[in-house]
Amino acid sequence: MAGNSFGTLFRITTWGESHGPATGVVIDGCPPKIAVSQEEIQKDLDRRRPGVGTGSSPRHEKDRVEILSGVIEGETTGTPISLLIKNEDVDSSAYETWREVFRPGHADFTYQMKFGIRDYRGGGRASARETVGRVAAGAVAKKILSKANVRVKNYTLELGGIRAQRMDEEEIEKNYFRCPDRDVAVAMEKRVQEVKTQGDSIGGIVEISVQNCPAGLGDPVFDKLEADLAKGLMSIGAVRGVEIGAGFKVARMTGSECNDPMSPTGFVKNDAGGVLGGISTGSDIVLRAAVKPIPSIHLEQSTVDHSFQPVSIRIEGRHDVSAIPRINPVCEAMVAIVLADHLLRQKAIGGR
Amino acid sequence: MAGNSFGTLFRITTWGESHGPATGVVIDGCPPKIAVSQEEIQKDLDRRRPGVGTGSSPRHEKDRVEILSGVIEGETTGTPISLLIKNEDVDSSAYETWREVFRPGHADFTYQMKFGIRDYRGGGRASARETVGRVAAGAVAKKILSKANVRVKNYTLELGGIRAQRMDEEEIEKNYFRCPDRDVAVAMEKRVQEVKTQGDSIGGIVEISVQNCPAGLGDPVFDKLEADLAKGLMSIGAVRGVEIGAGFKVARMTGSECNDPMSPTGFVKNDAGGVLGGISTGSDIVLRAAVKPIPSIHLEQSTVDHSFQPVSIRIEGRHDVSAIPRINPVCEAMVAIVLADHLLRQKAIGGR
Amino acid sequence: MAGNSFGTLFRITTWGESHGPATGVVIDGCPPKIAVSQEEIQKDLDRRRPGVGTGSSPRHEKDRVEILSGVIEGETTGTPISLLIKNEDVDSSAYETWREVFRPGHADFTYQMKFGIRDYRGGGRASARETVGRVAAGAVAKKILSKANVRVKNYTLELGGIRAQRMDEEEIEKNYFRCPDRDVAVAMEKRVQEVKTQGDSIGGIVEISVQNCPAGLGDPVFDKLEADLAKGLMSIGAVRGVEIGAGFKVARMTGSECNDPMSPTGFVKNDAGGVLGGISTGSDIVLRAAVKPIPSIHLEQSTVDHSFQPVSIRIEGRHDVSAIPRINPVCEAMVAIVLADHLLRQKAIGGR
Amino acid sequence: MAGNSFGTLFRITTWGESHGPATGVVIDGCPPKIAVSQEEIQKDLDRRRPGVGTGSSPRHEKDRVEILSGVIEGETTGTPISLLIKNEDVDSSAYETWREVFRPGHADFTYQMKFGIRDYRGGGRASARETVGRVAAGAVAKKILSKANVRVKNYTLELGGIRAQRMDEEEIEKNYFRCPDRDVAVAMEKRVQEVKTQGDSIGGIVEISVQNCPAGLGDPVFDKLEADLAKGLMSIGAVRGVEIGAGFKVARMTGSECNDPMSPTGFVKNDAGGVLGGISTGSDIVLRAAVKPIPSIHLEQSTVDHSFQPVSIRIEGRHDVSAIPRINPVCEAMVAIVLADHLLRQKAIGGR
Repeated sequence: MAGNSFGTLFRITTWGESHGPATGVVIDGCPPKIAVSQEEIQKDLDRRRPGVGTGSSPRHEKDRVEILSGVIEGETTGTPISLLIKNEDVDSSAYETWREVFRPGHADFTYQMKFGIRDYRGGGRASARETVGRVAAGAVAKKILSKANVRVKNYTLELGGIRAQRMDEEEIEKNYFRCPDRDVAVAMEKRVQEVKTQGDSIGGIVEISVQNCPAGLGDPVFDKLEADLAKGLMSIGAVRGVEIGAGFKVARMTGSECNDPMSPTGFVKNDAGGVLGGISTGSDIVLRAAVKPIPSIHLEQSTVDHSFQPVSIRIEGRHDVSAIPRINPVCEAMVAIVLADHLLRQKAIGGR
Repeated sequence: MAGNSFGTLFRITTWGESHGPATGVVIDGCPPKIAVSQEEIQKDLDRRRPGVGTGSSPRHEKDRVEILSGVIEGETTGTPISLLIKNEDVDSSAYETWREVFRPGHADFTYQMKFGIRDYRGGGRASARETVGRVAAGAVAKKILSKANVRVKNYTLELGGIRAQRMDEEEIEKNYFRCPDRDVAVAMEKRVQEVKTQGDSIGGIVEISVQNCPAGLGDPVFDKLEADLAKGLMSIGAVRGVEIGAGFKVARMTGSECNDPMSPTGFVKNDAGGVLGGISTGSDIVLRAAVKPIPSIHLEQSTVDHSFQPVSIRIEGRHDVSAIPRINPVCEAMVAIVLADHLLRQKAIGGR
Repeated sequence: MAGNSFGTLFRITTWGESHGPATGVVIDGCPPKIAVSQEEIQKDLDRRRPGVGTGSSPRHEKDRVEILSGVIEGETTGTPISLLIKNEDVDSSAYETWREVFRPGHADFTYQMKFGIRDYRGGGRASARETVGRVAAGAVAKKILSKANVRVKNYTLELGGIRAQRMDEEEIEKNYFRCPDRDVAVAMEKRVQEVKTQGDSIGGIVEISVQNCPAGLGDPVFDKLEADLAKGLMSIGAVRGVEIGAGFKVARMTGSECNDPMSPTGFVKNDAGGVLGGISTGSDIVLRAAVKPIPSIHLEQSTVDHSFQPVSIRIEGRHDVSAIPRINPVCEAMVAIVLADHLLRQKAIGGR
Repeated sequence: MAGNSFGTLFRITTWGESHGPATGVVIDGCPPKIAVSQEEIQKDLDRRRPGVGTGSSPRHEKDRVEILSGVIEGETTGTPISLLIKNEDVDSSAYETWREVFRPGHADFTYQMKFGIRDYRGGGRASARETVGRVAAGAVAKKILSKANVRVKNYTLELGGIRAQRMDEEEIEKNYFRCPDRDVAVAMEKRVQEVKTQGDSIGGIVEISVQNCPAGLGDPVFDKLEADLAKGLMSIGAVRGVEIGAGFKVARMTGSECNDPMSPTGFVKNDAGGVLGGISTGSDIVLRAAVKPIPSIHLEQSTVDHSFQPVSIRIEGRHDVSAIPRINPVCEAMVAIVLADHLLRQKAIGGR
């Protein structure tokens, strides 16, 4: 219980169901005198909005954020920032069908097991709509980071088995898939159309890199920077794996390959992914998150209802083919929130 | 700061440096009337002890645990359990060499950057010795789990690129590598000897599976079961990646492949790894952790000292070739601690 | 920073400034299947509303609560409950005068010192309006308590030096002052009119008693029941002292007077106020909170502005003469929130 | 459960029973490079030691503190500081009598109700011995405060109804009662001897004042400075009431009396006790704690045993007549711990 807050000093609490009147977030612990505007937060929300680009859900969420507290004359006051986003264009009637059916790959079954009751409309709290609050909070976290010149970058490394072969930073914002490789983005588009026709969905990998992060962030032995980052990313619905730096590849490396030598100008390479012993090194932090295919597919699936009777279902309606494009800003937000929190935590120590 | 506690209701706080007088853990929130004995905790500590088997450090830690509080007449009282393990057989003289040198792959540099001071003896707080407290607390957590018939199993899936091909549960405790495949265990042994001769080290993958976990554990949207498990595992020094169920493979699956259909007798398969929407399904929880090679190697390495002058070093002395065998019980402990915590959290809801 | 959450398992986060668009609270950790309705919460909010009765502020807050999440078909789902109350009838123009003046007895000076910026309109976050969220959350907490038959009662023991001489429970809801002594209530009314004419304000004492609380709540040694209750009450703006049971009188008692003997039917008396060693005894929990006079008075006062230049001020406008009547439901709410939290915490232990 | 930690950034966890092998505390979040020595901590422990002066328990606790981690070459490293104090001179045989009897005024009954098991030897965890860890941690907290020139002062304001009439700071350390009034100290001594002869015990009031505290500490609306201080003090076993500044007197003041006017040189008076709106003003913080008489008395008392059968008891053995002298350093420690925590929390904001 009480698992809807995240962070220690920069602490967010999200709330809201997919088909309730609104969703939102309360940010507690944001330092005062940070310039924060509805427009800036909106920009990030727009990036996670469906209805843009190919293979995406046609639901027209407008996602207009309202700042209800904590800001005066464009600046934060140090008091809690309450952000609210109304749920518009909500039609729950389609969900009446699933009222007593456990959709495969969804949280229907587990919410019912845990709580004995569930908001079946649009997935309720387990809907990806929950991430709206994360992205809104992330926009504020990024303002804190930008004061320290820290920058969080994210992009799609892989989608449906197709992997980016080059890193063209400018390309990222240009294609719908946020793929840093223009040619691969075209191939991804083709793959998505194919899968869409089949009534299926596909997964992928998001990479997040943090530039200019100061050395010293992270609080061993449990609140290590990568531990908090892993928790933040793994708490996103579709993420099934997280790795840092060389990640799973370390299992096949030797110590002499894996260790990053140092020279007077710093680390010679960065297989550590910017963290040693749970504390940032000052090199780029590099993380990857494995994203599963969206569980709502048009293909026929076997499942059971609340009485554990077998049911065969097809999920119609508006659904993305892949969570990848829209999950990018969510990953970015979680990483930004963890870093903002640790930046504040490190300030309490009082510098070296 | 203050990052040395883990858990919410079942909460552990570890302390201690590699070459200080002792290390230990305080467990707060253990329910009363759980049978706990020094012998049982000792058994788990012995499993992580070096000096047993091939390729391991010859340091003869005796690791005798003392129960200093919270237990009367063999049963817990509900008050904090303080466990202390003296550091015996400590010789810090060898570490004088590293007093002002940043060893590659170690946390020397980052602790210095963060705190401006560090206990350079044996890695100080960043030493693997820190995990003694985790394992001791894990032994108590497992007692809570066993009352609910939950069982945590762990084994080595891969070492130095050699992967287990079969799962023979009885084999696990029989070989030093905790490999469930006897033939592969022999190959691992050979590989370790090879690397040892080269003065190098190797990584691997640990798999942890939880059997008989009740449905309903986990607190979305941030304290999802897999999020807390990921944090717990990623907070272990050598772990660089964590995945659940199909893990990184989901990136290349379609929704129809990835979703686990349900039948009246339960889930037909378990690619979800026992968790949906952050809540346990009742199926086995399956996790994998990527473990990097031990950074202390005998080969020559380039690095810098506290004045950022280049230094060429060779680390002599007693060091394991791979963290894998000894990290197994640490992974098990962290998983047990997360589950015990969520078991208690779920009881507060009152549900079933 | 991040001090706007309260509780561990039943956890509330409040937000909102006096003259912002809205105030509210997010309740995380409320168990599922609790009947909660807008009407019930509204009833408690109406009790703290000004504009009713003598000596109170004429601001006509309507304080309409909206449930934005966590409830479906009249029952809680176990997900966060977001409650929002719009700030209507807000006119900030009067506060332009205080933009750069530190009003005595208010938090103007300290917010400016802490944050370097403050919402000067109506006291901003330091306004008593902040308690709206507490009362709304308290209404939900009381629903949890009522399932366990626990009842929180509150009344005015003293106002402007006039003390209730008898305890007539039915009288409490009948007079504006929530005084359990009808004759004294009349005297209080007279005193309030007197002070109002003088342009001054007065303090008093609220007593809260909890009936039917089960033995066993409270988590020594720091989260003792009375420690959490003291924090909860002391966190209310006007409260300057808190005592339990015999309270400050214990300083002049002997052990033989102060100890409560036990008989086969229970405690013979209750000077302990229902708590021993930080854990509830099963007897009534009895607490008292000392409430200071409202700092906004019409009399002339000396103070300084942001440049520390002396200023002589008179605070005109709508203000209560005493916080006492309206602070009653706030005290009740905080006590209910602490008890609901500890009720859930105790469930995690799993009973004796 | 899990109520044995206190603080957010400067966080202490205490453990240990009266008659177990040892008691101790883990301090997590202490900034690095603070000079900390066994001798300094010992000095504070000696101040709370019994066996010194009149009316005190003859148990000869030596209370030798050992620093087990977190300090190298006399300076803190930023890692957890584990402090251990062995329980010497322990004889539990006298407590066999109370194994199944609930002593009035003690926590025997409530621990049994909560946990269904209890360490009956010497009060177990509910013993005043538990405060050893608090005092040891307080000594470290004071080192952090002293770097910021903040000073915590404490003394006995009242004992057995006899109240100090003058404040002679130098006198405090000179008499056993820590009374700032020499003549009154003599009267207190006489009163204690009287009560001792009667086989009874007495209560009193401790006053704590904090000098030179910077403005800006405290995190509204729940972690207000006085709220955390109230919790800290109320968590001490014998404390039954806490007040700040004018305290309970505010109930009989008018706003014009209670408000502290400001002049260009600061606050003209300090009835607020150094805190406004939950944030320190820069004036002295003044707190008072009401301390109940020690419940262990030689006089005959009525109670029941575990089967709720009536029993008449007399508690023989070594017991103080009043907790007052020894509780002074405990109050001081809790106040120091709260302030150190908030000092670090405020640093995270980054100053005005």
